[in-house]
Amino acid sequence: MSVAAAVHQKAITLAKLALRMTAQAGSGHPSSALSLVHLVAHLMYRQMNFDPADPWNPAGDRLVLSEGHAVPIIYAAWADLGGVVSDGNGGWRRLETGDVDHLRARESALDGHPNPAEGFPFFDAATGSLGQGLSVAAGLGLAARRDDTGRRIYCLIGDGESREGQIWEAVDFIADHQLTNVCAIFNCNGYGQAAAVSYQQSSDRIAQKLEAFGYNVAIINGHDPLEISRAFTEFDQSHRRPVAIVAQTVKGWGVKTLLKGNWHGKPLKVDQLAEAEQSLDEYYAASVEGLNEGGTLEGPAAPVEVKTLDAPAVEGVQWPAFADAMEGAGLGDALSKGKLATRRAYGAALKVAGDLLPQVVALDGDVSNSTFSNIFAKHHADRFFECKIAEQNMVSVAAGLAAAGRIPFVNSFAKFIARAYDQVEMANISRANLKLVGSHAGISLAADGPSQMSLLDVAYFHGFTTVRGDNGDPLCWLFHPADAVAAYHCTRLMTRSRGMCYMRTHRPDVPLIYEPDTPFEPGGFHVLHAGKDLALVTAGYMVHVAKEAAELLAKEKINASVIDAYSLPLDAERLVETLRRSGGKALVVEDNYGGLGGAVAEIAAAAGNLRVLTLGPRCIPKSALTSADELDYCGVGPAQIIEKAASLIRAAR
Amino acid sequence: MSVAAAVHQKAITLAKLALRMTAQAGSGHPSSALSLVHLVAHLMYRQMNFDPADPWNPAGDRLVLSEGHAVPIIYAAWADLGGVVSDGNGGWRRLETGDVDHLRARESALDGHPNPAEGFPFFDAATGSLGQGLSVAAGLGLAARRDDTGRRIYCLIGDGESREGQIWEAVDFIADHQLTNVCAIFNCNGYGQAAAVSYQQSSDRIAQKLEAFGYNVAIINGHDPLEISRAFTEFDQSHRRPVAIVAQTVKGWGVKTLLKGNWHGKPLKVDQLAEAEQSLDEYYAASVEGLNEGGTLEGPAAPVEVKTLDAPAVEGVQWPAFADAMEGAGLGDALSKGKLATRRAYGAALKVAGDLLPQVVALDGDVSNSTFSNIFAKHHADRFFECKIAEQNMVSVAAGLAAAGRIPFVNSFAKFIARAYDQVEMANISRANLKLVGSHAGISLAADGPSQMSLLDVAYFHGFTTVRGDNGDPLCWLFHPADAVAAYHCTRLMTRSRGMCYMRTHRPDVPLIYEPDTPFEPGGFHVLHAGKDLALVTAGYMVHVAKEAAELLAKEKINASVIDAYSLPLDAERLVETLRRSGGKALVVEDNYGGLGGAVAEIAAAAGNLRVLTLGPRCIPKSALTSADELDYCGVGPAQIIEKAASLIRAAR
Repeated sequence: MSVAAAVHQKAITLAKLALRMTAQAGSGHPSSALSLVHLVAHLMYRQMNFDPADPWNPAGDRLVLSEGHAVPIIYAAWADLGGVVSDGNGGWRRLETGDVDHLRARESALDGHPNPAEGFPFFDAATGSLGQGLSVAAGLGLAARRDDTGRRIYCLIGDGESREGQIWEAVDFIADHQLTNVCAIFNCNGYGQAAAVSYQQSSDRIAQKLEAFGYNVAIINGHDPLEISRAFTEFDQSHRRPVAIVAQTVKGWGVKTLLKGNWHGKPLKVDQLAEAEQSLDEYYAASVEGLNEGGTLEGPAAPVEVKTLDAPAVEGVQWPAFADAMEGAGLGDALSKGKLATRRAYGAALKVAGDLLPQVVALDGDVSNSTFSNIFAKHHADRFFECKIAEQNMVSVAAGLAAAGRIPFVNSFAKFIARAYDQVEMANISRANLKLVGSHAGISLAADGPSQMSLLDVAYFHGFTTVRGDNGDPLCWLFHPADAVAAYHCTRLMTRSRGMCYMRTHRPDVPLIYEPDTPFEPGGFHVLHAGKDLALVTAGYMVHVAKEAAELLAKEKINASVIDAYSLPLDAERLVETLRRSGGKALVVEDNYGGLGGAVAEIAAAAGNLRVLTLGPRCIPKSALTSADELDYCGVGPAQIIEKAASLIRAAR
Repeated sequence: MSVAAAVHQKAITLAKLALRMTAQAGSGHPSSALSLVHLVAHLMYRQMNFDPADPWNPAGDRLVLSEGHAVPIIYAAWADLGGVVSDGNGGWRRLETGDVDHLRARESALDGHPNPAEGFPFFDAATGSLGQGLSVAAGLGLAARRDDTGRRIYCLIGDGESREGQIWEAVDFIADHQLTNVCAIFNCNGYGQAAAVSYQQSSDRIAQKLEAFGYNVAIINGHDPLEISRAFTEFDQSHRRPVAIVAQTVKGWGVKTLLKGNWHGKPLKVDQLAEAEQSLDEYYAASVEGLNEGGTLEGPAAPVEVKTLDAPAVEGVQWPAFADAMEGAGLGDALSKGKLATRRAYGAALKVAGDLLPQVVALDGDVSNSTFSNIFAKHHADRFFECKIAEQNMVSVAAGLAAAGRIPFVNSFAKFIARAYDQVEMANISRANLKLVGSHAGISLAADGPSQMSLLDVAYFHGFTTVRGDNGDPLCWLFHPADAVAAYHCTRLMTRSRGMCYMRTHRPDVPLIYEPDTPFEPGGFHVLHAGKDLALVTAGYMVHVAKEAAELLAKEKINASVIDAYSLPLDAERLVETLRRSGGKALVVEDNYGGLGGAVAEIAAAAGNLRVLTLGPRCIPKSALTSADELDYCGVGPAQIIEKAASLIRAAR
């Protein structure tokens, strides 16, 4: 049998498995899967080097299925190859073709969309929210380039999903970094979910676009093994310009039933399988006619053994003293003046993290001179990745880097990280070890106005903190430092926790509150002043405002505790004790649209016998020339805190 | 004086004002502003038709400044033209050049970035978070096309910001809809914030990309009035293909000081102004040498009078009875079987909204057969806009449509609306009258897995509900219907409230809970069963689960209230009363990562003497074949609700 005929034969085998698994599950996307049969057969049996028994090999090639809903075709190949999956009991086993009958079941590693975290290590990142895969592939490619493993990354992208702007952010990024080890493959089957794709997403147009973005482009028939093979040879041989393959395919290829009407996301009934298999056999017979060159399909070649990044354990490294760290980052002078913005101290801390841990990398979206990730860039230029103004791509690239063993710190204005919240969630579904740091958060930014202020980040990331990750820790730790010392230690804590962390820093320079060696811990808070009448609970910039308010309250004989809740989720038991000692009353003060208020109230309401009020911005901020002016405009200045505190004390009497 | 020389002269006048205003404010982006001086002088004094005294004229041309930080140059022109701004007391006045000294001040309409809501009606939408403006322009263009006003929309886009994928989503959308009334102008000054732009964002590359996307492209010197004029003439004459202008410009044009080093976002000191003005005068002298054709710069031509959309008051229309509405949408049969998904009833309600209100339009991102916006599309094809798989563009297009008087309903899976949360927030800063409807929310989706489930939407949108809008109402109403009747009435409420609303619907078919004419109101909740031992507070799909749990609890002699909290923010006073009558104890049950739990706890903790526990997913969901299986996996099934309820009763004893 010729190789081409063997690819056809394998395609038929995989197609039948994909049909069977979706029919058995009663859901899934067989028609999308079938449009990929030949591409996947070629990739997973001829093109890629990997070991189905060892999908963790750092030299093994990787496949990112950006159009995640087509995953049954990959599961089919993985079952056919006997690839490794979770055994559901903390161990691993080889997948068998019989396993495909459990697609999407609770106990199965074959989740509805790709997800390495549910026991399918052939994948690096969860996909299924469209348009993100090529960025993940770019992150993997970037790491492979640095590791010099020879690893290549293949990314399958739907034509419909190539409408997502993030795809073109990734295309730009790959061009910028000349990642010729990443192969973008566009699966142009002509149909989205509801209808045909636009002409703007036709194979012709996609090819024109890719050429204009600087790519070598091969347009091929995605069901012709010979054309597929030639295109990948071109990829293998291109070392200067990135290569993209635009494959014209057929949605529901080989199954006559699926070619009529809209079958997107609809499985066949089990009793329709026999007819579909017969249709596939007929397609096979027609396809292999005249194919008679020699050769066989031998399956994937094993990757070579390579040296991996020598990354020390994050717990083992000794961080320098705070003052030395600031000095080492060139902030000694600023520090000696007694005021330092949390964003700036974070920049110094990030540089230290880079000094100590070679696996720490940093990404920024053209604002490194505002986030102060430029301090890291100056000292670790080879581990700093400028992503330009494209935050979605940045976050997904970081997810790819995390999958390749890096600890990526993603930097931007906190407001612009919101641009990538869907990517953040997908990274969290992947359990990516991502560290997000958003600067210029809250209303203290003042003059630039609300388009630059992050106001919903605490509410959003607090959501993640309500869920537990695989190790029992919260799915995400939120850090919100009030001064430079806190920012330094919180950065250290971020490197040590496994999984997603989010840190929120502010623009203004603020005085130091903490002694350099104050202990900090995830979920911790500090009682800056212990009062008996009520507690002011806040974080970040507002700690300074609350301190001022507490001093003014003291003049009115109201003795308020000041609690710096620098990390969420809060240690509930200790918080309840602290509130009880503070008269059983708390006023939560925020410079954002909620999150901390709800967190404190939930703890208090669960405990009972505690009163909590929240004071946050009463309206959308506008520009104001000073932070004080902005706080007053939004109703969260010292005077308004005092008024609300007084009302709490009156109400609780 | 020649027209070209007059443009130069005007550019100098505007440049000086922009320098002055940023220097006085001590912040802002003069160098970006100066790169636009000639383009803005040509646009606002020659090209555009508008009346500075009546920026609301529906035939007036519009300018969208996508690179919002360059706004001082627009303020300069508006002051020079005496355009209308808010007088700060609910009225309007003409801006004067002296006003520029109050840029970014609390009491000024000249906000740090464009924002119509702060008293600057020349703009249609807040910008400043980059990459969104061209989509807004497309929305305005779409409305102008339907209104047949002849209005044209000009959009100024930075080269650095053109890295944002959303720009290319908008470019596709404009091509799809042949919006030749929208002119995309790329301001290629070569620099971002932290550094020079990538070659991928060079004028050459941007022009190549635009051509590949199907545009006619003019590359010009953006400081040459003659080249500018010729390019806009080309735009005026193109009625088949969209036109883009790629302008090569100089950041800090005309001011020698600003040409050295990185001046992004840095104003001059007031004492540097004289030298800068002298530099501008020298540039002017050099620029006008040899320009001596006849002509003068007469300022913008007034737009014609046009008929506007005849839109009835949303309160005045009479909605049909629920059953008639379902019947009219072809859901009579489904209804008679006693089960109907909230997403499907919403589709029928949206169709009714379209029947009654010509200003209602709908947008979808290739999932109209899942969100059921296809019912609207079938009946109101001319008001249904298929946005394909590009949610960011979809939301910003809707913001543009809202600015043009439409009530846009934006539809997608709730998970994919998260893709556009930054655009949602920008629309909210604009106070856009947007209605967002996310389907397939929560974990009841089951088989498709977490990449398709919206789990953070309640936490996110609850954030907006904590803030008041200009009319004293919450900035956003969140609706979360439990059955078809509720979905129908909540849709009606969404058309009636002015401002942003978010509705969350679910995939599964569920039985009807409510009588057809049950009253619903923003912030309302229904007590489905009044019990004396505790209250189960929930919403949406989980209402059905809570009902089941309450029935099981009843067998154990625990009498639980069941509260359907179908809208946030909740009526606090009534909730407190209801909880007190329910034994003073509440268990909040969620199928998402928080939001409702915090909302109820905040109300309870403010009132005092109430106990509240929350039960939400304990882990990231994975695929499961049924909703019941998924609920159990995540720890929020009936059995787990009962267990938690029992613990609450024990703890409260």
